[in-house]
Amino acid sequence: MSKILSDSGMDTIFRQARTFGTWAEGDVSEVLLQAVYDLAKFGPTSANCSPMRVLFLRSREAKERLKPALSEGNVTKVMTAPVTALIGYDMEFYEKLPDLFPHTDARSWFAGDDEKIFATAFRNGSLQGAYFIVAARALGLDCGPMSGFDEDMVNAEFFPDGKVKSNFLCNLGYGDPGKLRDRSPRLAFEQACEVL
Amino acid sequence: MSKILSDSGMDTIFRQARTFGTWAEGDVSEVLLQAVYDLAKFGPTSANCSPMRVLFLRSREAKERLKPALSEGNVTKVMTAPVTALIGYDMEFYEKLPDLFPHTDARSWFAGDDEKIFATAFRNGSLQGAYFIVAARALGLDCGPMSGFDEDMVNAEFFPDGKVKSNFLCNLGYGDPGKLRDRSPRLAFEQACEVL
Repeated sequence: MSKILSDSGMDTIFRQARTFGTWAEGDVSEVLLQAVYDLAKFGPTSANCSPMRVLFLRSREAKERLKPALSEGNVTKVMTAPVTALIGYDMEFYEKLPDLFPHTDARSWFAGDDEKIFATAFRNGSLQGAYFIVAARALGLDCGPMSGFDEDMVNAEFFPDGKVKSNFLCNLGYGDPGKLRDRSPRLAFEQACEVL
Repeated sequence: MSKILSDSGMDTIFRQARTFGTWAEGDVSEVLLQAVYDLAKFGPTSANCSPMRVLFLRSREAKERLKPALSEGNVTKVMTAPVTALIGYDMEFYEKLPDLFPHTDARSWFAGDDEKIFATAFRNGSLQGAYFIVAARALGLDCGPMSGFDEDMVNAEFFPDGKVKSNFLCNLGYGDPGKLRDRSPRLAFEQACEVL
């Protein structure tokens, strides 16, 4: 039986963690970005398909390429964040299955089935996006995930070959807690769950 | 700045955690299922939309209703697991936004826009599915997430009103580590990420 997480650990990744839009001083190094990925990569995906792809926009130049695609309310959040992670999913993930799932011919489960490819890439790329958020928090970063941007513009600018599609953005840094409003309510167990 | 997670905490939720298909003795109580949800619910979603819905199949009767929809390789995994969570997403999530995101009229961002509703429900319902897996592990459970089932059959059997769609299944219990094979490889940072 596994050990359970400490109370403070549960606070760090879930209970006390918040979505930030304003950032305190503090750089985010490339080494820390690698550590986040190297933790998140262990989260489970269907047939280990691992479709998430991440562009870490850290330079001013990279941020400027994203800026025109952002909805108005997200421009300052992105431009002031130490790093903005552009989380995408690879629609050709199945080409890596001979390495990622070598026990059987898993590539043949997907190749040519566009509907299954999309559902698998989007579902599992989103699962990995959540592992990424949890991993970033586990390593002391604050996150600001966001969906407010023009996906077609971002795809054209950052993924011009069409294989990878943008999923969501996640600002990374050390949040300014003074700018937070109270946490919004969550659905109670009885509203979201049922035991049968 | 947040505290980082302990090394053993990172092991529990990511590095040492594995996907299980065979289960040791040990019941999973309803209280523990509530604790998993009450941790996972804090994970961030777009506009706090929280579209995940969970049916915990715990009784023999509930498992038998699922059984005909399972792919052959998943029948024993499900029928022997203490609990199988059926993770769905609510395509009418926006009806709850006046409560979940009371600062503005967020309902109007979605109502009538089927493409945006689907993308938001599926993306954020999957994010929450990953928070659910991490929360279960944080509370000492082992997980066996699975996609191998007939979605239409499951939707018809468990969500007959058509509002909620099935996303994936997640067996919950205490895994039998003797039955695990070695962990499959993950993509290296350089294969999945780039810093710009």
